Amino acid sequence: MSNTKYTIGVDYGTESGRAVLVNVATGEEVATAVHAYGDGVIDERLPGDDKPLPPDFALQNPQDYIEVLKVTIPRVLAEAGVSPDDVIGIGTDFTACTMLPVKADGTPLCQIPELRNNPFSWIKLWKHHAAQAEANQLNAIAEERGEEWLGLYGGKISSEWMIPKIWETLNKAPEIFDAADRFVEAADWIVWQLTGQERRASCTAGYKAIWNKEKGYPSNDFFAALDPRLADLTTTKLSTEIYPLGERAGSLTPAMAAQIGLKPGIAVPIGNVDAHVAVPASTVTAPGTMVMIMGTSTCHLVMGDEEKVVEGMCGVVEDGIIAGLYGYEAGQSCVGDHFAWLTDNCVPPSYFEEAEGRGITIHQLLEEKAAAQKPGEHGLLALDWWNGNRSVLVDVDLTGMMVGMTLATKAEDMYRALIEATAYGTRVIIESFVQSGVPINELVAAGGLPGRNKLLMQIYADVTGQEIKISGTDQAGAKGSAMFAAVAAGKAAGGYDDIVEAATHMATLQDVVYKPIPEHVEVYNQLYADYRILHDYFGRGANDVMKRLKALRKSVRG
Amino acid sequence: MSNTKYTIGVDYGTESGRAVLVNVATGEEVATAVHAYGDGVIDERLPGDDKPLPPDFALQNPQDYIEVLKVTIPRVLAEAGVSPDDVIGIGTDFTACTMLPVKADGTPLCQIPELRNNPFSWIKLWKHHAAQAEANQLNAIAEERGEEWLGLYGGKISSEWMIPKIWETLNKAPEIFDAADRFVEAADWIVWQLTGQERRASCTAGYKAIWNKEKGYPSNDFFAALDPRLADLTTTKLSTEIYPLGERAGSLTPAMAAQIGLKPGIAVPIGNVDAHVAVPASTVTAPGTMVMIMGTSTCHLVMGDEEKVVEGMCGVVEDGIIAGLYGYEAGQSCVGDHFAWLTDNCVPPSYFEEAEGRGITIHQLLEEKAAAQKPGEHGLLALDWWNGNRSVLVDVDLTGMMVGMTLATKAEDMYRALIEATAYGTRVIIESFVQSGVPINELVAAGGLPGRNKLLMQIYADVTGQEIKISGTDQAGAKGSAMFAAVAAGKAAGGYDDIVEAATHMATLQDVVYKPIPEHVEVYNQLYADYRILHDYFGRGANDVMKRLKALRKSVRG
Repeated sequence: MSNTKYTIGVDYGTESGRAVLVNVATGEEVATAVHAYGDGVIDERLPGDDKPLPPDFALQNPQDYIEVLKVTIPRVLAEAGVSPDDVIGIGTDFTACTMLPVKADGTPLCQIPELRNNPFSWIKLWKHHAAQAEANQLNAIAEERGEEWLGLYGGKISSEWMIPKIWETLNKAPEIFDAADRFVEAADWIVWQLTGQERRASCTAGYKAIWNKEKGYPSNDFFAALDPRLADLTTTKLSTEIYPLGERAGSLTPAMAAQIGLKPGIAVPIGNVDAHVAVPASTVTAPGTMVMIMGTSTCHLVMGDEEKVVEGMCGVVEDGIIAGLYGYEAGQSCVGDHFAWLTDNCVPPSYFEEAEGRGITIHQLLEEKAAAQKPGEHGLLALDWWNGNRSVLVDVDLTGMMVGMTLATKAEDMYRALIEATAYGTRVIIESFVQSGVPINELVAAGGLPGRNKLLMQIYADVTGQEIKISGTDQAGAKGSAMFAAVAAGKAAGGYDDIVEAATHMATLQDVVYKPIPEHVEVYNQLYADYRILHDYFGRGANDVMKRLKALRKSVRG
Repeated sequence: MSNTKYTIGVDYGTESGRAVLVNVATGEEVATAVHAYGDGVIDERLPGDDKPLPPDFALQNPQDYIEVLKVTIPRVLAEAGVSPDDVIGIGTDFTACTMLPVKADGTPLCQIPELRNNPFSWIKLWKHHAAQAEANQLNAIAEERGEEWLGLYGGKISSEWMIPKIWETLNKAPEIFDAADRFVEAADWIVWQLTGQERRASCTAGYKAIWNKEKGYPSNDFFAALDPRLADLTTTKLSTEIYPLGERAGSLTPAMAAQIGLKPGIAVPIGNVDAHVAVPASTVTAPGTMVMIMGTSTCHLVMGDEEKVVEGMCGVVEDGIIAGLYGYEAGQSCVGDHFAWLTDNCVPPSYFEEAEGRGITIHQLLEEKAAAQKPGEHGLLALDWWNGNRSVLVDVDLTGMMVGMTLATKAEDMYRALIEATAYGTRVIIESFVQSGVPINELVAAGGLPGRNKLLMQIYADVTGQEIKISGTDQAGAKGSAMFAAVAAGKAAGGYDDIVEAATHMATLQDVVYKPIPEHVEVYNQLYADYRILHDYFGRGANDVMKRLKALRKSVRG
């Protein structure tokens, strides 16, 4: 046992889990290990079953989550040469809402042999999209009833969230609904497995299950209006005991400790969500700074002192990011995916030949060519809705648009226009917050994109007119979970009193700061004005052509 | 000398001239020869000169036109084994407005040694675009003065036409303006060279020089308002003697006959324009049938019994296509160019590999993939303005637009959407004519595209709801010129009395007829309604974003 203390953060993603061993005093990420889920995303057929799953299903196997712990934790310890005696806590974060039906003792229904062949006994991954009908009906009923909480979720509950997913199970597999003692977020379930105790987090309950610290869940009347069988859902199969982030959920059980090679009794914090935990991991623990977690999509997180209704946000939750503050979430459903679409579908062979000849990626080549342009030079303007619009329009039926093409338009022009479009989309979100009384003075970018594309970051600075700093970690989820583990362990054990203190010591930013270039800002202000006009024209009902095209497409494809 | 009589048609294009030898009795195209212009399109520097030309210049060398005759005519005779004794006429058609300054005897100023180094002494090709400032000013003055003739040209005189091009010379090279006894269309100049007589055609005068059979040219007052030095332009450097199509301009001079290997004295008809001459060559000699000459751009020609003002048409000219009828012209500035742009810029390497592996062109592959779709299936809608909009909006500053893209959108989807967009554009033109009292009951397609792309023709039938027939010749310009040569020769010499009779015997259609498929028509009616909404929104001033983007682009590029 040395004087140096460590915590482990485990980040559960869509395809794999990642553990990182972190030095509590310095925040140094000492070792990392990744393990892909054996069953991955289950969207064609259940393991060991021939029957095809219905469309839009995306399931997972809870055993894969346990395997991640068994494989990665011994590996990071071995790689770093760190003794389990020096690990004072283990924290976890998850995709959400990723949820499963369990028995009262936490046993997943899919592990009960007679229920195993029923797809509804398995984990519904966040991107399980088969509950859209229930979400639509829920939103209609909530609107009709004038439910106040609807405004705290941008006016719409997503089909990806807890209540539509439960309702879908009730409708399609009532026997599973009945067999389930509880429906629980995977984020809470893994903590249950580590500690032996069900301790639900404010973050998942607030953002995904319509729970509010002051007002609790929607009324039983509301749930009864959905379906009488749901009337007492929240007090029976969910839970009204909700714990704020930063608390200790419990201690690692001896049984689990033995399986994963850690010391029993070490601290386990309340479960967290991958995006939200990235905020303190990127040094942000106070209002005024928005963290953008940028990858295929972007998640925008910012904190405030008050609860405000902001158009098109995904949710506002007290204690949802940092205890004592209101955590606001918004998002863009398609960011990096735009650039991947373009390189997959709109780039001619000569570009690939050039990139290959120079030993660079096609993205690097396009970035280089696009970076040689001045703002406005390509003459294009796009709406970044290739995968719908999450914030602020909350409309999955919107689609992409580009204007300004000529016979001289090239791939790098469209590439740059798509980057700019996503930046305009972020500016819309920022303005929506600011206008609603949630100040934003600074941006911090995290996730996979910022490190890969300097042009993108400069364009974001130029379009938003804000300085952008970059998170010091490229595994902000796991890092943040390790920080919360240090808080759960507490100062006496070598950790910290709270997440603010933990962030001070453990979180870092990169040295680079992207500063707005005044001449660029001026041009982008002009272009943004046009983006807003088209955003509202196509997005707010003046011309619903995108929806008509989508409906026609659907009806033609049958 | 046999009983079989022949005529020769010579079609002067942008890059080359093409001669076709035609059997007068049957219309059979017996032999063809093409000769590329030695100096091609002169847009960088004059032949034998180092000085770069100004931007937007596009010049040609008149000697190249003579060379075409010298090379191709002996070649078609030799190839067919036809004696010059059996050739009863030679007709010509040209791009327009392609114009040059000449001395009173027809000598081009660029052939005068002391003027040769001045770019303004050369031929300005139709796509010489350096007279935009003059065109803008001309249009402003005409509008201010309420000039009635403006409505007969869709409200705008193009910078490509005769008066702006002359005015540009006056402004930029007054010494050339002064040295020019005449400004003449190349279409008329070549006839002058063949016959020794200046005989200007109603077609070029009407469509390109603002001449009207009833009212003549605009008044001297109008020209004086442009510039006092232009006041008597039409009676000095142009001509008020204008001849209808179908007339005999004169007889082949002995000198020219000797140079090109034909018999002196054979008939030469009034000069024609490539698109207009294609109409009778495609069997159309009466009102009600629109001929679409489809290539990189499309030219729409239809005849009527009356003079009507049609929104956005290029012009209406009495005797402009067939003597005795009003010829209407409209156009789309970008048709095949859209598809070329897409294949050059928006198709990934795997498609090229597949096409190569199967031994087909990339266009064939895209057509095949697009043809496998049902109307509406790709979910896209585009505006066909990658190179501006000629009819009906007459606005070169409009640009392209596409809406409906998702992460599943592929190259063939965009390919089909662009084909459809050009079809919608044609439907707008048809509706504009019909609503203005120029009936259109049938479509005939000519030019390079119809034979190459069946999907395109079926989509045009489905979008317009009209049957489409296909011209029997793929060299409709040269064929039509040979037909007019037969008319100029007259019945006594073995030709015909008029072009209607000539068309009956010499012109053909292909066997194929593209018929609208009712289910497709229904879907395209829906999509066309949305096209119209976007057409008007972006094209008629509701949102001038295309112009703002273009202006910004220009100002940024400096």
